[in-house]
Amino acid sequence: MSSNQLDTKSQAWSALFSEPMSELVKRYTASVFFDQRLWQADIQGSLAHAEMLAAQGIISAQDWADIQRGMAQIRAEIESGQFEWKLDLEDVHLNIEARLTQLVGDAGKRLHTGRSRNDQVATDVRLWLRDEIDAIAALLRELQTALVEVAARHVDVILPGFTHLQVAQPVSFAHHLLAYVEMFARDEERLADVRRRTNRLPLGSAALAGTTYPLDRARVARTLGMVDERGEPQLCLNSLDAVSDRDFAIEFSAAAALIMVHVSRLSEELILWMSQNFGFIRIADRFTTGSSIMPQKKNPDVPELARGKTGRVVGHLMGLLTLMKGQPLAYNKDNQEDKEPLFDTADTLKDTLRIFTDMIGGERDPATGQRSGGLTVNREAMEAAARRGYATATDLADYLVKKGVPFRDAHETVAHAVKAATSHACDLSELPLAVLQGFHPLIEKDVYDVLSLRGSLQARNTLGGTAPAQVQAQIERHRARLG
Amino acid sequence: MSSNQLDTKSQAWSALFSEPMSELVKRYTASVFFDQRLWQADIQGSLAHAEMLAAQGIISAQDWADIQRGMAQIRAEIESGQFEWKLDLEDVHLNIEARLTQLVGDAGKRLHTGRSRNDQVATDVRLWLRDEIDAIAALLRELQTALVEVAARHVDVILPGFTHLQVAQPVSFAHHLLAYVEMFARDEERLADVRRRTNRLPLGSAALAGTTYPLDRARVARTLGMVDERGEPQLCLNSLDAVSDRDFAIEFSAAAALIMVHVSRLSEELILWMSQNFGFIRIADRFTTGSSIMPQKKNPDVPELARGKTGRVVGHLMGLLTLMKGQPLAYNKDNQEDKEPLFDTADTLKDTLRIFTDMIGGERDPATGQRSGGLTVNREAMEAAARRGYATATDLADYLVKKGVPFRDAHETVAHAVKAATSHACDLSELPLAVLQGFHPLIEKDVYDVLSLRGSLQARNTLGGTAPAQVQAQIERHRARLG
Amino acid sequence: MSSNQLDTKSQAWSALFSEPMSELVKRYTASVFFDQRLWQADIQGSLAHAEMLAAQGIISAQDWADIQRGMAQIRAEIESGQFEWKLDLEDVHLNIEARLTQLVGDAGKRLHTGRSRNDQVATDVRLWLRDEIDAIAALLRELQTALVEVAARHVDVILPGFTHLQVAQPVSFAHHLLAYVEMFARDEERLADVRRRTNRLPLGSAALAGTTYPLDRARVARTLGMVDERGEPQLCLNSLDAVSDRDFAIEFSAAAALIMVHVSRLSEELILWMSQNFGFIRIADRFTTGSSIMPQKKNPDVPELARGKTGRVVGHLMGLLTLMKGQPLAYNKDNQEDKEPLFDTADTLKDTLRIFTDMIGGERDPATGQRSGGLTVNREAMEAAARRGYATATDLADYLVKKGVPFRDAHETVAHAVKAATSHACDLSELPLAVLQGFHPLIEKDVYDVLSLRGSLQARNTLGGTAPAQVQAQIERHRARLG
Amino acid sequence: MSSNQLDTKSQAWSALFSEPMSELVKRYTASVFFDQRLWQADIQGSLAHAEMLAAQGIISAQDWADIQRGMAQIRAEIESGQFEWKLDLEDVHLNIEARLTQLVGDAGKRLHTGRSRNDQVATDVRLWLRDEIDAIAALLRELQTALVEVAARHVDVILPGFTHLQVAQPVSFAHHLLAYVEMFARDEERLADVRRRTNRLPLGSAALAGTTYPLDRARVARTLGMVDERGEPQLCLNSLDAVSDRDFAIEFSAAAALIMVHVSRLSEELILWMSQNFGFIRIADRFTTGSSIMPQKKNPDVPELARGKTGRVVGHLMGLLTLMKGQPLAYNKDNQEDKEPLFDTADTLKDTLRIFTDMIGGERDPATGQRSGGLTVNREAMEAAARRGYATATDLADYLVKKGVPFRDAHETVAHAVKAATSHACDLSELPLAVLQGFHPLIEKDVYDVLSLRGSLQARNTLGGTAPAQVQAQIERHRARLG
Repeated sequence: MSSNQLDTKSQAWSALFSEPMSELVKRYTASVFFDQRLWQADIQGSLAHAEMLAAQGIISAQDWADIQRGMAQIRAEIESGQFEWKLDLEDVHLNIEARLTQLVGDAGKRLHTGRSRNDQVATDVRLWLRDEIDAIAALLRELQTALVEVAARHVDVILPGFTHLQVAQPVSFAHHLLAYVEMFARDEERLADVRRRTNRLPLGSAALAGTTYPLDRARVARTLGMVDERGEPQLCLNSLDAVSDRDFAIEFSAAAALIMVHVSRLSEELILWMSQNFGFIRIADRFTTGSSIMPQKKNPDVPELARGKTGRVVGHLMGLLTLMKGQPLAYNKDNQEDKEPLFDTADTLKDTLRIFTDMIGGERDPATGQRSGGLTVNREAMEAAARRGYATATDLADYLVKKGVPFRDAHETVAHAVKAATSHACDLSELPLAVLQGFHPLIEKDVYDVLSLRGSLQARNTLGGTAPAQVQAQIERHRARLG
Repeated sequence: MSSNQLDTKSQAWSALFSEPMSELVKRYTASVFFDQRLWQADIQGSLAHAEMLAAQGIISAQDWADIQRGMAQIRAEIESGQFEWKLDLEDVHLNIEARLTQLVGDAGKRLHTGRSRNDQVATDVRLWLRDEIDAIAALLRELQTALVEVAARHVDVILPGFTHLQVAQPVSFAHHLLAYVEMFARDEERLADVRRRTNRLPLGSAALAGTTYPLDRARVARTLGMVDERGEPQLCLNSLDAVSDRDFAIEFSAAAALIMVHVSRLSEELILWMSQNFGFIRIADRFTTGSSIMPQKKNPDVPELARGKTGRVVGHLMGLLTLMKGQPLAYNKDNQEDKEPLFDTADTLKDTLRIFTDMIGGERDPATGQRSGGLTVNREAMEAAARRGYATATDLADYLVKKGVPFRDAHETVAHAVKAATSHACDLSELPLAVLQGFHPLIEKDVYDVLSLRGSLQARNTLGGTAPAQVQAQIERHRARLG
Repeated sequence: MSSNQLDTKSQAWSALFSEPMSELVKRYTASVFFDQRLWQADIQGSLAHAEMLAAQGIISAQDWADIQRGMAQIRAEIESGQFEWKLDLEDVHLNIEARLTQLVGDAGKRLHTGRSRNDQVATDVRLWLRDEIDAIAALLRELQTALVEVAARHVDVILPGFTHLQVAQPVSFAHHLLAYVEMFARDEERLADVRRRTNRLPLGSAALAGTTYPLDRARVARTLGMVDERGEPQLCLNSLDAVSDRDFAIEFSAAAALIMVHVSRLSEELILWMSQNFGFIRIADRFTTGSSIMPQKKNPDVPELARGKTGRVVGHLMGLLTLMKGQPLAYNKDNQEDKEPLFDTADTLKDTLRIFTDMIGGERDPATGQRSGGLTVNREAMEAAARRGYATATDLADYLVKKGVPFRDAHETVAHAVKAATSHACDLSELPLAVLQGFHPLIEKDVYDVLSLRGSLQARNTLGGTAPAQVQAQIERHRARLG
Repeated sequence: MSSNQLDTKSQAWSALFSEPMSELVKRYTASVFFDQRLWQADIQGSLAHAEMLAAQGIISAQDWADIQRGMAQIRAEIESGQFEWKLDLEDVHLNIEARLTQLVGDAGKRLHTGRSRNDQVATDVRLWLRDEIDAIAALLRELQTALVEVAARHVDVILPGFTHLQVAQPVSFAHHLLAYVEMFARDEERLADVRRRTNRLPLGSAALAGTTYPLDRARVARTLGMVDERGEPQLCLNSLDAVSDRDFAIEFSAAAALIMVHVSRLSEELILWMSQNFGFIRIADRFTTGSSIMPQKKNPDVPELARGKTGRVVGHLMGLLTLMKGQPLAYNKDNQEDKEPLFDTADTLKDTLRIFTDMIGGERDPATGQRSGGLTVNREAMEAAARRGYATATDLADYLVKKGVPFRDAHETVAHAVKAATSHACDLSELPLAVLQGFHPLIEKDVYDVLSLRGSLQARNTLGGTAPAQVQAQIERHRARLG
């Protein structure tokens, strides 16, 4: 479509059309008010395309110079907020192309040679998403670092480890935080996989069938950095697939949903830990809100909202899957609906990861690079809670096993001991030796070592276990990995 | 929270807080940029509350007059675009309340007596949604009317009825359109059910436990039109439930998802019918778009986009269900995430229904109230297609059954006849009598009556069947119902 | 299809088919191993259809007698486990029809007159679902009754009411339980709405276009109880819609998903309350499990599993919406996929509701009808927790307001008092009068009345509030409603 | 838990429990009826664990011999169907362990040393899923091969390429099929990524905190093949994460959902192409079904059902995401709900891929390894359809551009020509030269070359384009890749 046509899209599309597009339809089908955020990718892609057209002799060196000049001005206009986005021009592509033609004339009209909006938009979204993935991966690493550093300060803090939210065994608070580092590290891995499949070039597929011009697609891919680790250009190799494929969007959304599921789990725990019945941590005041009517309130709004936003991201994934289900080849207009969920997913992730990093690790001092003002840990409350649920009962069973008692008898013996302690409302370690010996004659004074929280912790010294030495080793591994 | 505090929320919440809210947190947690669209419901709810407070003697008549005056001005300011929405005031409620106190002083400070934002926002969303439901129901009725009127003009147009997208039996095109009228009629019913459960008053539940002031909740419900068909006020009767319940939002989203599923089915058919291999209909040019590179194209963008938007609405439903899963009582900040999906769902429905009504029925002439310029039907193409797949084979079997042949033999006999016709590349009705008689001696000349498309159509004269008389009766029933 | 054909479906379908169905395809497309549970509905529907055929003179009285006799035997065979279900006969319908023809000959072959499997299966599923809805509604009522009766025994038990899982205001434990009664009551309402739209008759629509036989569809509807509250028969009035409509399945699934979301919220609270850091309740041992290695464990498996099963039901809803999206009219094989999610949803709901009723209310003594052995409530732990978070701070603010202090100052004054109490690690009510007066001179000795948990509770005496009198009134209302 | 306890789980769990588990609870919480399919993985994992215990001297060589002997017998019993699965023993793990102890006594009781069911089940599911992934990847490759070979036979068959289901440009039918090969190749890549994250060892994490025994986790990983491409053992390095992580299940489900979305797109096209209005292909009779009442029907049940099953798999993904949302660490019973959706997803994929391979490529002759009896292609119908929608209009525009006409004018000129051809109901190539020249004087006789379908096809000779040479090159690339 030429600039003339572009200017008059409020007129009919072409001689074939007997009437202009209805205003309602224009609003319903236009994407410019949300896809304008692709402008950088759109210009980047157009420049790479034009550079190749010139290199192949399809357009002249002068055209290429004109296009560069025009794009530089458009970039400046958009950055300064002076660019006028027009609904009549439907989308980011036609808005920029029309302006280019206004600015540089014929060269602008030649930019679209050998491409169509179908391969252009697919390229733009991939370029944009690649940058978003990089930004999110970097934020994931910052969050991991924040968690590792808080962990490093709390290796010997004892928390009741729960299964079924019932006290199970004592664990290091650091160990607990590192569980989330593992999750976010997997998320980072997954994003790297998504990035690999995103960073492939559809441009050159034209409307659906390829084009008649002698394009050098590999050159464009290299210009745009769409290369693998060995520098090989990465191209979509079937034009019908290239223009209709939205796998990368769905795959990114699935990875994003998992990140948010992890955030929701951490949020749930932060909320629990801040509740008066736990009192394990405090979040800095600047991350909480009060109540307009209850003067005593400090609410953990941030983790609650993050937990809620999990739904939003999962919903977007569902939307995209529904969108693509049952679509015949090649491009259908349905695909335009990929953008808003994708944009919102990326925004939600970035905001959430940033705010969690600050809330947990504290804000970074630009001078020192150090973070301060993150989570405040109440180690006494944690340890007191760990004393409440017979967390060392397994250790007592192990003690008996090591003295030669079959595990079956040991397990049952300890159940009797727990029952007795419950009726005395005390911990196993608070039962007098005589009482304990009443449950089994092999129990001796050294039993109190294994009944201590700290003794229990030290004993779980297997790879990946909660013993402080293991936890410290994991911290070092993560520090090395996270640079 | 008083206006002073409200003005300085960039300061700490209260003496309890040692630092102001972080800017990042403010942006993350604020809702004013999307919940400001609740402003009318917010003012409506506040006025009903204040009127009751005055009637109960909780505030003075002067306060009530001041509040009315202040709200009138705020309404004017918002309508004229002069109202300044402030991020620091977090949400629509605090923005309006702060401005009210600026305008009328102490009376403004008394408005929040006996309520909290928890019951206030629940009330606002319900009032807003009730109006949206009414608007959507009205649009559903307009779309039904458009379908019925197009149907009325095509009762005797014959379409190949498909099962499995294979030609099955001839049906009236009107009958086919009326299938969608049934769907949208059910949607209307469902919305009425949702409305009933939405139109209940949470106000008076305060933060979570009720309030100490002698409120007259039934009076507020009546003022707000929250009454059943007999005029009985409809109240939420448990304060903990009232502030945390978002069932109405989920239920609305589920009804909306079904509406969009129906739209997606209709869209699929419109797209098929417009495809050159069908050529059954044309959509007016103003509802189609061309291609920037393929000069011959007229694309059915509107039905495609609507089909795609099904994903969006289904995604929102998924998001809301995920949001509420596993939330303990009572209000949690997660709930703030109910609004954007709800708003977007309502907007999507309204735009889609409006555009489908115009696209199918044509635009309404404001003078005559008549619609024109809707779907163009190519009855010849439809009828030709109905001739292609042996659509009257069942009629031939029925013919034999009526002559006394067991259905088993009849079915098998016809299968042989179809096989023969296939090998001659002709329809059953094009086989000579002698050939037909070769399959069964009871076949006589009158067989050609039942082999005709029109004969087949007429014969299906049961209630809800496709015979023109039945279809006409249904059209009359719908017209009566839709007024 | 006659019985002969039915017996030999491992042969080709008809003369049209050049080869028998592949074994893999047979397994992939057959439904008999899951749809056989529709057998009662299938027989019920067939008998109603046959009775009408006889009444209309379409089949003879003898045929009708034979069909009744055959069906009686089939019923007996299925109930006794002697019926042989055959994969080759694909589905429940063909299995039963083939057996009927074996048993009664020609009459069996006449049963299918004027119907097809498309309207038959739609009828079967609706009949089956109607019964399931009735069963689930009854279970919902039992669960409500159990909750109401536990509530009735704990009206004056004080629980810390939470918002944001932070202590907010004291509430009655009974009031808290009644919040769930409200949710399940809404679920019951919703099921009644779904039932209304489920209880409509598709039979008589035949394959897609109606039939040529003079059926009396209203008679069949009446026989099957498909009537509204005034006894009017409820019919699907468009044959194309009737055979392809699965709205009722989606609508039921959406209602089911909401029920499970409510169950998940209750589960979350039961799990929290059983955690050692709360210790508010105990679940009877027979609803908990131990650990194979940790001798002290009693885990709340039932609420955890129920919370997990929310995902299952939500997933089924999403599956059904995806299933129907974009399907053209009329019946497509995709629709067969409606059954398994629907069956599993109903099973999950019934099991879950039953087990929750017993777990909360205790098992019912068949002799007395009384339930015992449900939740054990630790009222001391609840009340102690309510003392921890300054739950009466709002009451102190209200106290000052009533003495004439503007709410703004009152709110801020109380924030200072809370800060002081926090630093003394005591409750507001434990601060000496002199200290309190230091925050505001209007504070007098009577302040300790409003600072008590019980005083705070009593004061929230608005409709739907937590004051014991209100809670008792709600209990009476529910008892009357639940019979 | 010892065998004695195991046998009497219908008794109370331990002395701590005052009553046995309710029958209802037993059924609700037991998993043995679905998790028994993990038996091979369970035995495999147990043997690897026991071998390591022996190597570390934690159990004796005799114990290890006994365990091997017992497991061999159990394996034989299960394979022969003689193993008695007991509800009372809850799950696959306890069933096998109890039987082992019955068979070999004390050695059986020592097997559980240093592990818990939490890390055991996580290991089992990962082992099982790894094998399923390998099976599915192999099936994906077979399907790709089938598509490639059908493509190889149809490189020069011309299909109308659609965008918006409107005729766009002619494409090679082979090119169209290869678009699906690209999709399934991406699916294969994704599964490889999922496999990498699945193939990591949780065993050694015990209940949640690690264990006190000197385990050699790397040895177990190596025994189980949980190593990376360089043979390095792959371990879960945080015990809390290891027992509660279900990312691999979600990630697999997301990859599965995408596979099914691709299948749904292909299904949609197969259904369209088989519809009488297209008539492009035929599916072998053994993949179709007839109708019990319409003798002429051959329905594409398989692609329809596959399209429907997309919903099932998408639903399972949504269920799993909902399941994990907001779960605190570490293991919660909710997680048991991961299995049924996972099992059903794998089964659905395998059946679907197998049946599509046969349906498209034909069944494989075991003697020759050749497939025959797949899709039948009607090349005349395809080519006729390609002639219907002015598929070479873009080529005419390109023709003019190459003669120096600006694209804007060319596009508009062609629109006029299409309008004229439409009114003459003929193709552009059927307009006389004089008429064409009327639209533009530069048009000469050679225009008819570019207006031919074949000319258009040949011209799109860019990498990934539809020109036969390009398509052939892609076929060779795929053949090389697929071996």
